[in-house]
Amino acid sequence: MKIAKFALGLDFGTNSVRALIVDVGNGDEVGTAIFAYPSGAAGILLDPKDSNLARQNPADWILGIETAVPEAIDEAKKKGRAFVPENIVGIGVDTTGSTPLPVDRAGKPLALYKEFKKNPNAHAWLWKDHTGHAEAAEITALAAAEHSEYLAKCGGTYSSEWFWSKILHCLRTDPKVAAAAYSWVECADYIPGLLTGVADPLRMKRSRCAAGHKAMFNDRWGGLPAKAFLSKLDPRLGELRDRLYQKTYTSDIAAGSLTKEWAKKLSLRPGIAVAVGSFDAHLGAVGSGVETGRFVKIIGTSTCDICVWPTSKKLPDVPGLCGIVDGSVLPGYLGLEAGQSAVGDIFNWFVNEIEPGGPKKGSHAALTRKAAALKPGESGLLALDWHNGNRTVLVDQRLTGLLVGLTLRTRPEEIYRTLIEATAFGALTIIRRFEEFGVKIRDVVNCGGIAEKNPLVMQIYADVTGLEMKIARSAQTCALGAAIAGAVVAGRKGGGHDTFAEAQAAMAGIRKKIYRPNGVNHKVYLELYPLYRELHDAFGTKEWTGSLFNVMKDLLAIKDRQRR
Amino acid sequence: MKIAKFALGLDFGTNSVRALIVDVGNGDEVGTAIFAYPSGAAGILLDPKDSNLARQNPADWILGIETAVPEAIDEAKKKGRAFVPENIVGIGVDTTGSTPLPVDRAGKPLALYKEFKKNPNAHAWLWKDHTGHAEAAEITALAAAEHSEYLAKCGGTYSSEWFWSKILHCLRTDPKVAAAAYSWVECADYIPGLLTGVADPLRMKRSRCAAGHKAMFNDRWGGLPAKAFLSKLDPRLGELRDRLYQKTYTSDIAAGSLTKEWAKKLSLRPGIAVAVGSFDAHLGAVGSGVETGRFVKIIGTSTCDICVWPTSKKLPDVPGLCGIVDGSVLPGYLGLEAGQSAVGDIFNWFVNEIEPGGPKKGSHAALTRKAAALKPGESGLLALDWHNGNRTVLVDQRLTGLLVGLTLRTRPEEIYRTLIEATAFGALTIIRRFEEFGVKIRDVVNCGGIAEKNPLVMQIYADVTGLEMKIARSAQTCALGAAIAGAVVAGRKGGGHDTFAEAQAAMAGIRKKIYRPNGVNHKVYLELYPLYRELHDAFGTKEWTGSLFNVMKDLLAIKDRQRR
Repeated sequence: MKIAKFALGLDFGTNSVRALIVDVGNGDEVGTAIFAYPSGAAGILLDPKDSNLARQNPADWILGIETAVPEAIDEAKKKGRAFVPENIVGIGVDTTGSTPLPVDRAGKPLALYKEFKKNPNAHAWLWKDHTGHAEAAEITALAAAEHSEYLAKCGGTYSSEWFWSKILHCLRTDPKVAAAAYSWVECADYIPGLLTGVADPLRMKRSRCAAGHKAMFNDRWGGLPAKAFLSKLDPRLGELRDRLYQKTYTSDIAAGSLTKEWAKKLSLRPGIAVAVGSFDAHLGAVGSGVETGRFVKIIGTSTCDICVWPTSKKLPDVPGLCGIVDGSVLPGYLGLEAGQSAVGDIFNWFVNEIEPGGPKKGSHAALTRKAAALKPGESGLLALDWHNGNRTVLVDQRLTGLLVGLTLRTRPEEIYRTLIEATAFGALTIIRRFEEFGVKIRDVVNCGGIAEKNPLVMQIYADVTGLEMKIARSAQTCALGAAIAGAVVAGRKGGGHDTFAEAQAAMAGIRKKIYRPNGVNHKVYLELYPLYRELHDAFGTKEWTGSLFNVMKDLLAIKDRQRR
Repeated sequence: MKIAKFALGLDFGTNSVRALIVDVGNGDEVGTAIFAYPSGAAGILLDPKDSNLARQNPADWILGIETAVPEAIDEAKKKGRAFVPENIVGIGVDTTGSTPLPVDRAGKPLALYKEFKKNPNAHAWLWKDHTGHAEAAEITALAAAEHSEYLAKCGGTYSSEWFWSKILHCLRTDPKVAAAAYSWVECADYIPGLLTGVADPLRMKRSRCAAGHKAMFNDRWGGLPAKAFLSKLDPRLGELRDRLYQKTYTSDIAAGSLTKEWAKKLSLRPGIAVAVGSFDAHLGAVGSGVETGRFVKIIGTSTCDICVWPTSKKLPDVPGLCGIVDGSVLPGYLGLEAGQSAVGDIFNWFVNEIEPGGPKKGSHAALTRKAAALKPGESGLLALDWHNGNRTVLVDQRLTGLLVGLTLRTRPEEIYRTLIEATAFGALTIIRRFEEFGVKIRDVVNCGGIAEKNPLVMQIYADVTGLEMKIARSAQTCALGAAIAGAVVAGRKGGGHDTFAEAQAAMAGIRKKIYRPNGVNHKVYLELYPLYRELHDAFGTKEWTGSLFNVMKDLLAIKDRQRR
């Protein structure tokens, strides 16, 4: 009998870290544990005076590994006699991002020093931190003027959520942290460095995924943005460039091997390979079985869309995408990232905010049940899903939601269904953008709570797009993707797999239930979609006479002024 | 001491009739009573198989007079020692409309005959009956082709709510009623005929207001539409024309004098004058003190706007108005009618329908309180108030409501305030249309429950329009207007007044509280209104490139098909 081998995935989220132990032979998830970060509010350091601020304490990550891994091992031991921790052959890591933190020359986070413990700027700048919004605008403007190629790979706008915006903001507002920071690392860089002992910021293997999607790193222009460009933003940013990195790595590469100390702490074999880190959505796509022609949707409060395209085949820049990065998902493939700024958040908004009596338990289920009884178009309603702006294809945060077709008989479940349909039309707009530029989509694999729990949403997505909607087998695709990376860096000889394709074939899968388009409904949606596009283009673009592009902008300008 | 004289107003509504006794010297309302119609659902005969059908039983009107007048007299007796029913000097009548009913040669409603008692087609076709929608379209099309002048006076579209649509539908669907109907009379014609004993359809004094606004009656083309025109629609309609009327009368003219039988039944003096009938909104405007430069808004579930213009002064046809009829409000003045298809109905819809937990007592008050704390434009929201179509200035029932500017933080009270603002923008659009064509508006007098009870609505209307919002003193302006007509037909010699101007000066008035525009808020609304107009013109007109006129229509077409 063949002895089962396992890989460990570590998934660093916004509020917690998850450890997942997976059988590399069949993808069985034999042990899992979650550790909720103890710092701040649900793991997020906040500032009551600045709603843009959101930080994370790197000490929470360390404590999280120390707690969650032994718990996952315990669970695996209880579950299966075949499991022994010595048979864990590799570790993979996925994290949120861009979540950079300042480190000293040795790679130790400043936040771990006593003098910086209480300074949020010395902690990790969580992905959802927006304190650098002015700097983001400045970076976008300079890049548009001098290096439009930088923007072409990241959707045309450099975000306040990203690496350089945050560092530039720190340089300008906290000289003490700025001076003490020898370098900055992403959470996705830091964790593998920590576990392998290769924490030196100049020697550690940096994440291609993080660098490419958030730091404008691209081999086409020699890696990071030009020193002259960064120096123009701030001379210290230009200097910092020399203390960052010239090379980046995909997650099929080992960042190093597990140190004796960590092996002991976690009861693992010392020396097992630890993969270079990637972002959660990207390894989530791997755990969902991403491959050419397959579109992975990670549906949550917002949605992240991932697909891949062979690097060897020509692909023009696709306008409006969040990012196009070689190897950010799978080595040898361009990782293409798109997204919708709000999906579950819109449904939650309707239930939690609009219901004047306050949200009731079961509201979603009741509305879904009633909405499911409606036919497409029966309500006469149509919505734009821009309650949190539009990430892809318009890349415009200053857009807002719209609802048209209201009558005195309009019912809540009709609005609820219309909001679901609007997010489906948003999804179709993204898929069509991919296809216009030659990236043909064959099927869609969905993951996340909504995909698993709301068949109505999935059926509407199938009916609107005319594509099959599949659901990833795993309920924790990000951690599974990380474990797959762990199996790959172990290699077949080490008990794992040699390639992502092999590892995915063995470890990832989809569920039996497939949502197939209903032809009758699809036909109605083919009539409704052009109306959605009419509103989309009228309110979202400036391109034609009589455009209503000004309406949402003017309303927001008046709103901002009236709230001051 | 001068002995007080009184006038009686009878106000025939949708669900009930009101009797009101008013002191002609000072407008004191000394006695009032309401009689709820016993037939059907709240006085409306419905057909579960046809939601367009809405009829009224004329027997309810008769019973209503017999019940409400003595009750009002009783109240007046109890209230003031000065009151004796013998001092009631005249009676005025206002009714809903167009509410026509078939009568026999003697003017007796067919519905009062045993054989027709259960046939809804033999009853009064209530204003909100839409069974003649196909016939309305046919009439509009034929008029557009052959007699565009007919349409120019009634807003460009002949409505399914009006006289000819209803009769034509009856001719085509109920030959028995069609054959038995010697003539058709409006409720506003029938009641004065009943009380004065001049019920003969060829001799009774028909209402100018009803004929002009609903039956395309205009002296310019010799009264009713041409026989050839009506015959083309149906030969029987052409024949009916000869059994209708050639002359119409304003409400300063007596339809006749109260019969002995009715006087006895009601304990009134026999022989007192009964005024020719008018519609509720038109006499409501009289009771609100309508005069040149004053815009009267009767705000309820929908809104009816009335103003007057001296017949002697030239006025072009104002496109989009519901009607322009000489003498329909005041003799010697053109009565100009406009309206908003839904006002209170939109606020009720939000509270009753959208709140998934069901409407709560006090929802309106709670939302109003929170909405009042917001500044104009602070929510970033904007709405179109077309939940029930647009009556003026677009005259298009196939339009729907729209809400834009939604975010994940949008709150119910923000939507509620935005809906109020949308109706205010709708009101401003109507006022501007009047002014564009030379009808200058000096102030606005509002009446109806919302005007009296919701200061926020009134303040927003003042801030949006930049005009003073006044409130009619009486809470029952329609019945008061009818009583004023009663005082006028009595004449000064008979204890009343010689003219409407004199009677209004004595009997009508406004309240102390006047809502004056807040300059700061008005400035913000001057910024928001152009955005409203942008949406209004984009979705409501076809006039420019990139018009979104198709969007609401296409959605409704798909909706209609999907509901079949």
